[in-house]
Amino acid sequence: MFKPVISLTTDFGYNDPYVGIMKGVILDINRDCHLVDLCHGISSFNIEEAAFVLSYSYRYLPKRTVHLVVVDPGVGGSRRPILASLNDHLFVCPDNGVLSYIISANPNGILWEIEGDHYFLKPVSSTFHGRDVFAPVAAWLSKHLDPPMFGEEISDYMLLPARPPEVSSAQIKGRVLHVDGFGNLITNIAASLLNKHIPKEMHNRLRIRIGERIVHGLSAFYQQSPDREPVALIGSSGYLEIALPGGSAARQLAMGFGDQVLIAS
Amino acid sequence: MFKPVISLTTDFGYNDPYVGIMKGVILDINRDCHLVDLCHGISSFNIEEAAFVLSYSYRYLPKRTVHLVVVDPGVGGSRRPILASLNDHLFVCPDNGVLSYIISANPNGILWEIEGDHYFLKPVSSTFHGRDVFAPVAAWLSKHLDPPMFGEEISDYMLLPARPPEVSSAQIKGRVLHVDGFGNLITNIAASLLNKHIPKEMHNRLRIRIGERIVHGLSAFYQQSPDREPVALIGSSGYLEIALPGGSAARQLAMGFGDQVLIAS
Amino acid sequence: MFKPVISLTTDFGYNDPYVGIMKGVILDINRDCHLVDLCHGISSFNIEEAAFVLSYSYRYLPKRTVHLVVVDPGVGGSRRPILASLNDHLFVCPDNGVLSYIISANPNGILWEIEGDHYFLKPVSSTFHGRDVFAPVAAWLSKHLDPPMFGEEISDYMLLPARPPEVSSAQIKGRVLHVDGFGNLITNIAASLLNKHIPKEMHNRLRIRIGERIVHGLSAFYQQSPDREPVALIGSSGYLEIALPGGSAARQLAMGFGDQVLIAS
Repeated sequence: MFKPVISLTTDFGYNDPYVGIMKGVILDINRDCHLVDLCHGISSFNIEEAAFVLSYSYRYLPKRTVHLVVVDPGVGGSRRPILASLNDHLFVCPDNGVLSYIISANPNGILWEIEGDHYFLKPVSSTFHGRDVFAPVAAWLSKHLDPPMFGEEISDYMLLPARPPEVSSAQIKGRVLHVDGFGNLITNIAASLLNKHIPKEMHNRLRIRIGERIVHGLSAFYQQSPDREPVALIGSSGYLEIALPGGSAARQLAMGFGDQVLIAS
Repeated sequence: MFKPVISLTTDFGYNDPYVGIMKGVILDINRDCHLVDLCHGISSFNIEEAAFVLSYSYRYLPKRTVHLVVVDPGVGGSRRPILASLNDHLFVCPDNGVLSYIISANPNGILWEIEGDHYFLKPVSSTFHGRDVFAPVAAWLSKHLDPPMFGEEISDYMLLPARPPEVSSAQIKGRVLHVDGFGNLITNIAASLLNKHIPKEMHNRLRIRIGERIVHGLSAFYQQSPDREPVALIGSSGYLEIALPGGSAARQLAMGFGDQVLIAS
Repeated sequence: MFKPVISLTTDFGYNDPYVGIMKGVILDINRDCHLVDLCHGISSFNIEEAAFVLSYSYRYLPKRTVHLVVVDPGVGGSRRPILASLNDHLFVCPDNGVLSYIISANPNGILWEIEGDHYFLKPVSSTFHGRDVFAPVAAWLSKHLDPPMFGEEISDYMLLPARPPEVSSAQIKGRVLHVDGFGNLITNIAASLLNKHIPKEMHNRLRIRIGERIVHGLSAFYQQSPDREPVALIGSSGYLEIALPGGSAARQLAMGFGDQVLIAS
């Protein structure tokens, strides 16, 4: 039996003891697991960014990883804690849409409400369910408890309003959903969508408009642009991204989360 | 026998190899332990902030965890290295007051000076005792060496000047001792102190003054305020905090470490 | 057999899932290893800074550690992936000079090109070889595969242009190669170089010029300066550094990577 892996994704950043506290709670229940920080750099309270980043990251963790996801602006209110089995991975998180992208790509997944509060750390606070609810449930799951032990299967889980790229004969209109530490602007335009609507042999003639700028053609990699101009390419996420070789596209173009990107062939 | 846990708390931030170097030193002595970053976001050289943050965080790690605490502006000078057994947790740190809050809550604790320099990494530098003194001692402790192996028990350890909230019949006066990554202002006013002096049924009529602003009543959780106004609540730390739902109270109120918070009933 | 250690050094920062993804890839191949973040705060694309920081940090990890180093502005282009055995440590990285400082200190090291692409994660992207090439090779190495399994030994690996401090009878001229989180300016002037050219008994009469400022003498530790003036000292890295007790020398002096430091006796 392999040692179980628990990944952690939050909007907590690295300033505080919150992540370390959750790890402490987990290790107190299961000392025999690997803890992997997947991403704590989600913008505060940004559920859609978390849903997007998680969707292109989780599958690089081993199958059966328990992904603890705490981007939870509604903590203490009425939103439910849930757990999910999707594509051979497990997720523990608030029912606020943070699994939307993964669910829509994996329609055969199963979700459960977390009801069994005997697994929780007592007293349960109204401000830090990451510590009191999600971390202990993730730890027990990593000890191979079955998901139905925690509550009833549900089908009325929350999904974010679907806002896929808009495709017309003339163009594809997408949005920036994550800005990485290099300043690369990662959009919601998947390589598969691009390839479906625009034949590969035309990719070097594409015009990509972002803000006031137009980028011509797709690059194969970051340093292909000789002259420190922004480039467009399919990034490691599988999505179209705008990058500035040796610099920050986000800073040079003054663009960020939610901004529009237009592709015209 | 459970695999031992070592937690790390520093003011090193995440820019440098210092934390990784300490982990390397530990693993060279004890390969069979869990390493947990508890908090590396303490403001540079801020012993009181470290003492406060540690005091509400350490107990979420498993009992017998060895807590390595390196906020050490006096490194290389005359301050001693110490270790402590407090509330079934172990601590390794400089004798500069960084355990003050935990010691005052656990008067039965025992402290020792670390004298046995055969445990140290040689040559001992005068600028990085985290690497040369504290990390190796933490590693040896995690191998179940008894604290008295490292030196004599002491009672003349350093404590920060006690600055608890000032309580009068009319008000409670506290201070902000940590600003978290969301911009929440965490004060030194404990829920227990508040409840002792102001009956719970009056909490929704409290007036809390922070800077120029007055917040009315205690909220139960962050999003209870409908109108992006600052709220006051008992945070997950067990202390009163000022938060701005969906935003940063620290930025909106321009408040930070050491600033005063007044509660009037 | 001790549990193997893999360290990670990148310019990825802490905003993104990239480091967590690499750890996931490693754990999918070798679940039985320790993962240590050595440094993710290298300035974006700064190969020389990475080479320098790595050179004074790696040796605090246990011998036989596999160091995964991904500062890789040329990813997707023609630079080769390599691995190296240097001073009883293993390194996996792009062939872009990032091992230069360690190689020049360890002339008996051996380097190999990584050719065996059956170890890679397929399909290999053109933007994230940390995930697709370096992480899987590091994981397989940590399972005690021999380096020659991955490719041919090479001697034409890339080295950064050597830019050691310039020594004349009157002075030593060096450069700042890393600014740490405290704002300490770490130069490329090694203690050994200083001691060789200037007898120790003269160290308290040295004049060290950095920008417009002159610092007099070497301090033994940070807080030796009573009056919040910049000090010069041999830091824990073994190199001369300029520090401001209780503050940031980088900010006060407005100095950073690449800036000149002059020592006159």
